[in-house]
Amino acid sequence: MSASTSTPAFRAIDVIRKKRDGIEMSRSEIEGLVNAYTKGDIPDYQVSAWLMAVVLKGMTRPETAALTDAMLRSGDVLDLSALPAKKVDKHSTGGVGDKTSLVLAPLGAAAGLAVPMISGRGLGHTGGTLDKLEAIPGFNVNLPVAEFRRVLEICGCAMIGQTAEIAPADRKLYALRDVTGTVESPYLICASIMSKKLAEGIDALVLDVKTGSGAFMKNEKDAVFLAELMVETGERMGKQVVALITDMDQPLGNMIGNALEVVECMEVLRGGGPQDLRDLCLELAAWMLHLGGVAGSVAEGKKKSAELISSGKALDKFRQMVELQGGDARVIDDAKRLPQAQHTMQVKISKSGFVASMQCEQIGTACVILGGGRERKEDSVDPAVGIVLHKKVGDRVTAGESLATVHYNSEAKAVRAQQLIEESCKISDAAPARRPLVHRIIGKVEGKSVEKK
Amino acid sequence: MSASTSTPAFRAIDVIRKKRDGIEMSRSEIEGLVNAYTKGDIPDYQVSAWLMAVVLKGMTRPETAALTDAMLRSGDVLDLSALPAKKVDKHSTGGVGDKTSLVLAPLGAAAGLAVPMISGRGLGHTGGTLDKLEAIPGFNVNLPVAEFRRVLEICGCAMIGQTAEIAPADRKLYALRDVTGTVESPYLICASIMSKKLAEGIDALVLDVKTGSGAFMKNEKDAVFLAELMVETGERMGKQVVALITDMDQPLGNMIGNALEVVECMEVLRGGGPQDLRDLCLELAAWMLHLGGVAGSVAEGKKKSAELISSGKALDKFRQMVELQGGDARVIDDAKRLPQAQHTMQVKISKSGFVASMQCEQIGTACVILGGGRERKEDSVDPAVGIVLHKKVGDRVTAGESLATVHYNSEAKAVRAQQLIEESCKISDAAPARRPLVHRIIGKVEGKSVEKK
Repeated sequence: MSASTSTPAFRAIDVIRKKRDGIEMSRSEIEGLVNAYTKGDIPDYQVSAWLMAVVLKGMTRPETAALTDAMLRSGDVLDLSALPAKKVDKHSTGGVGDKTSLVLAPLGAAAGLAVPMISGRGLGHTGGTLDKLEAIPGFNVNLPVAEFRRVLEICGCAMIGQTAEIAPADRKLYALRDVTGTVESPYLICASIMSKKLAEGIDALVLDVKTGSGAFMKNEKDAVFLAELMVETGERMGKQVVALITDMDQPLGNMIGNALEVVECMEVLRGGGPQDLRDLCLELAAWMLHLGGVAGSVAEGKKKSAELISSGKALDKFRQMVELQGGDARVIDDAKRLPQAQHTMQVKISKSGFVASMQCEQIGTACVILGGGRERKEDSVDPAVGIVLHKKVGDRVTAGESLATVHYNSEAKAVRAQQLIEESCKISDAAPARRPLVHRIIGKVEGKSVEKK
Repeated sequence: MSASTSTPAFRAIDVIRKKRDGIEMSRSEIEGLVNAYTKGDIPDYQVSAWLMAVVLKGMTRPETAALTDAMLRSGDVLDLSALPAKKVDKHSTGGVGDKTSLVLAPLGAAAGLAVPMISGRGLGHTGGTLDKLEAIPGFNVNLPVAEFRRVLEICGCAMIGQTAEIAPADRKLYALRDVTGTVESPYLICASIMSKKLAEGIDALVLDVKTGSGAFMKNEKDAVFLAELMVETGERMGKQVVALITDMDQPLGNMIGNALEVVECMEVLRGGGPQDLRDLCLELAAWMLHLGGVAGSVAEGKKKSAELISSGKALDKFRQMVELQGGDARVIDDAKRLPQAQHTMQVKISKSGFVASMQCEQIGTACVILGGGRERKEDSVDPAVGIVLHKKVGDRVTAGESLATVHYNSEAKAVRAQQLIEESCKISDAAPARRPLVHRIIGKVEGKSVEKK
């Protein structure tokens, strides 16, 4: 009887041919492929051919949702239904100086949400939340799931790295994509991001999709396409998802580098910090609060978030989370307890005028060269090094002024970084047009589009 | 000093990305990929991603020639320059009842050419020359290269299977294409065929590119595209190549099955045999003789070929080759010495009218079901079984007449084959339009196009 009840043998070759020929795959074919690959029943060489066919032929929306769902269900999905608060998270596609998570998790928690944030490490020119958190002495990002849940229950937020139990299909597929030229597909990027985020057991998600010279999606059209894909995929899976297309044509805030970015986040949580970072944190927090039902509108969410900062409640949450995750909370009152680079070096402005543009990816790369990021996954990171910008795009500058301070531990590396930062910055005679911080908003709230251009 | 003289490290990922993005690869990049893969320095999963990108993005003519050349030079190239005769071969893209090689090799040799023919086995619905030759008791298709050369010197023709030394890159790539949905690319098919054929050390090549329901290229447009690609690739590599687009919308000749096809070839070499098979053999032989310089024109080549058949010289060459390769030459005068199936069964015509069409691939599949071909590479073949057609497309038929005789050793298989053959044949009230045997001729002779539609 066992033969008659078993499913028909899954043939990878049939699915590869289908995608190659532009025929839509069924949900069960996609599930079959993902499950067989996760179990090791089909070889890498078949999956990489399929991945390339996906890159070049694309996917329909139902295929994208089915792939996301299959990857999500390849591992554990956190069941946080016992927590009374709405579970809301934020995810960014990554950029330079993009540090909003460290502000948003405690801010959301202070507003009464539960923020179960599972983050990644930096790779290439962009930083990663886990590396930033680990700049705080003792902070443990590798909590077991039970402990993660406990911190979340007590404090309302918790921040860890991906565990082996969450979306193992994504981990295996990503490693293969990385070496087969199949990273650059919005469909695969969408499934990778959304499968991991939805495995957190959340009700709503705010996406921060970056566009500009420091983003993976250099042009806005690509960013919007990915954002729409992720929003629709999330909706098909019964989640509230809103995406903000935000600017990454220059670094966010003034500080780049792990410990330095922790410092800047604490400034924002104290009500200070640079304008662009503060504004973006309030904008994203407002959406989290609105989607999570603790603010009736985005405007109300923004007001509430600003109050939670000025009252110190957001900073208190941050302190509580750091303590619960084993970190040295004294860094909050004494930033000198964070790792400090041994030396600093100035990058000078070469001529007077206006900062016309910054090649943002180059500045990210300068930080990687200093040791603040990794070129390969296995590289370790120096938490102390980094860059502090004194000028941003649109600022009027005078020749000889300092553009940036480089915090370094190796002079040879600092000289290379200094040169890269200098080259990244263009000075013009006239003030450049300002780019907006938020380019667009995509998604629906209670069935009504929130599209804003 | 070794570091400065070594070539820069070949990075497969760069070549994959280039092809994915539609950028032309350089000759050295293609060589790098083929050589590294043949040596085992890059993994299957990178090459399969690249192959899928080639299938979906195509290749330029210089890329196709570079790939062919790199695959050719991945192994030994026969040096037959010591032989005074021009070296000429014929290659067919495969079909049902396509047995011309067994006629053309001895015919070319009888005309004074050297025909160093390296052939393949049947796979899927098509037969293979090696399986047909092995129907002759004792015939050895696995001669070492030195012995192959000796037979060629003595007799002017020799027929063997691919050796491990010839185009090892093709063998490895083909095995990977077979399991990754990347067989169907004219560029990859061209490189696979041409690399093996040019490794024979030939001066000229006649290509028989099949089109119709029994061919791999079902429609003529695809067949013409592949033919043009192979002709141009051969020319870029300094060889004379002419391609004939020929009909494979019904089986060629009347007999399908290994021993049966040997019988039919001997009939042609004796001046008999079915009209279509005889005509195509004379047409292909004429081009071989013309390209090989032993006939001043195709018309002269055809006349000469007909004479070599009627004089018995072509059959004598066949006999000599069979003996030199260890085969029992008595089969030539006594076909009963070839393997005989135990039983026969008739396929009856269901209604009177004209044979309007034959689904040619189905007839090939019927032969595979009988055991005359292989569904998987590792299957063995029954040389005795097969099909003898008594009617061809355009013939007037009466209900109850025999359409075909099935030669079988297993009744269950025969019943399935019988049904398939019956279904493959459509009867109409009016006579169908006749399809030409040769649809088109593509190529150049002495710089002048021989294009004929």
